Amino acid sequence: MKIEAYFTAAEVDPAALAEATVVVVDVLRATTTIVEALANGARGIYPTASTEEAVKLAHSLGRDDTLLCGERKGQKVQGFDLGNSPREFTREAIAGKRIVMSTTNGTRALVVAQDAARLFACAFTNLGAVATALAGERSVVVICAGRENRFALEDALCAGHLIGRLAKGATEDAQELNDAARAARALADARKPTKRLFTLTDGGRALIEIGLADDLDICAEVDRHGVVAEMRDRAITLAGG
Amino acid sequence: MKIEAYFTAAEVDPAALAEATVVVVDVLRATTTIVEALANGARGIYPTASTEEAVKLAHSLGRDDTLLCGERKGQKVQGFDLGNSPREFTREAIAGKRIVMSTTNGTRALVVAQDAARLFACAFTNLGAVATALAGERSVVVICAGRENRFALEDALCAGHLIGRLAKGATEDAQELNDAARAARALADARKPTKRLFTLTDGGRALIEIGLADDLDICAEVDRHGVVAEMRDRAITLAGG
Repeated sequence: MKIEAYFTAAEVDPAALAEATVVVVDVLRATTTIVEALANGARGIYPTASTEEAVKLAHSLGRDDTLLCGERKGQKVQGFDLGNSPREFTREAIAGKRIVMSTTNGTRALVVAQDAARLFACAFTNLGAVATALAGERSVVVICAGRENRFALEDALCAGHLIGRLAKGATEDAQELNDAARAARALADARKPTKRLFTLTDGGRALIEIGLADDLDICAEVDRHGVVAEMRDRAITLAGG
Repeated sequence: MKIEAYFTAAEVDPAALAEATVVVVDVLRATTTIVEALANGARGIYPTASTEEAVKLAHSLGRDDTLLCGERKGQKVQGFDLGNSPREFTREAIAGKRIVMSTTNGTRALVVAQDAARLFACAFTNLGAVATALAGERSVVVICAGRENRFALEDALCAGHLIGRLAKGATEDAQELNDAARAARALADARKPTKRLFTLTDGGRALIEIGLADDLDICAEVDRHGVVAEMRDRAITLAGG
């Protein structure tokens, strides 16, 4: 399998993705939250780059069964229904709802890749399900959302663990990897995702500072859900659902 | 020691570097070549972002004892005296000369950081000398040149080995690291610089394609020279020299 990884969405040429199968990773927290929302019965998640677009889209979808969600600087956008904490996306809060979502990094990366042939949202919480969904692909592009167009450790680590699972025991040389994919896989060989490691990352520290340390427990939970989150026609839903 | 790393120059805010001690890394090949040039008696290296600036500067310095050097797409710029292969920078070719140099990634990263309080050029070939020069610093910024604003494995690996040496046996937790610095150090724990590894990287493969595989031998040679390459007033010279 040929695997290209990018550590920031800024490194991606969107025009080159038209034929590609793409995976977007934003462990802290957008893709973790998207997986949680789908696992808890959300009808679909609509990522938008800006909060203004989110408000417009929520109104055009109909506010009765649509929730406006997202963050800026980690905290819920004023006037929105929910923030970007996976703990908020309980079955009680979101089952049967459409979710329009705008976050600083994750939803922007999804929007960058939205014209890809196939597009999946991946976090540690649905790692195995995504790896299984990708098993037949010849070529995969993994885009780490990063943090304000900079490298984010937990995203690279998640990309690396995904690449490791796609290898299914094959050596690094049996995969055709670009530099970032190779580095991500080496990083995954050296480090496991743990809450403790996340407390040391730039993104983790920022969440702790605003009182959201408990989010890290869910974000570090590998294979918490068997959810394949796939984006089609601007909405992320359960693949096959 | 506080250490921030950046995997591409695009992630750096030049204005934030004014008080900083900065290290620029471009293993394949600009900083390796700069180290080679200084070790072989060059008077100074003048990095420029564009080939046009290089030509202008070489003329203003006086063409008699100035060499015009650099590459685009890995190959010598037409009309220039030398390319960017460390093997070209022999004592016979460059001793006593000023060298004006423009490369795709490395010299641009040096120009991005040129207003830093202190600025060093680092490759595997002078890793130990740079680590020694930085020993007293409280805070260091390591900028990987990368490859056309994308992650380059060998630069991250070099940054990681430098960070490991700066730790002097201390654990990762004893250093204050940003995400990229932490990932680089983990990568360095997992991988040593070898010619074989470099033949697998995006940059290494590009050099092999244009017949420059032999450059990789020098680029992978750790501590080949005890050269501290420091940039002041637009020129890189031997520190203390």
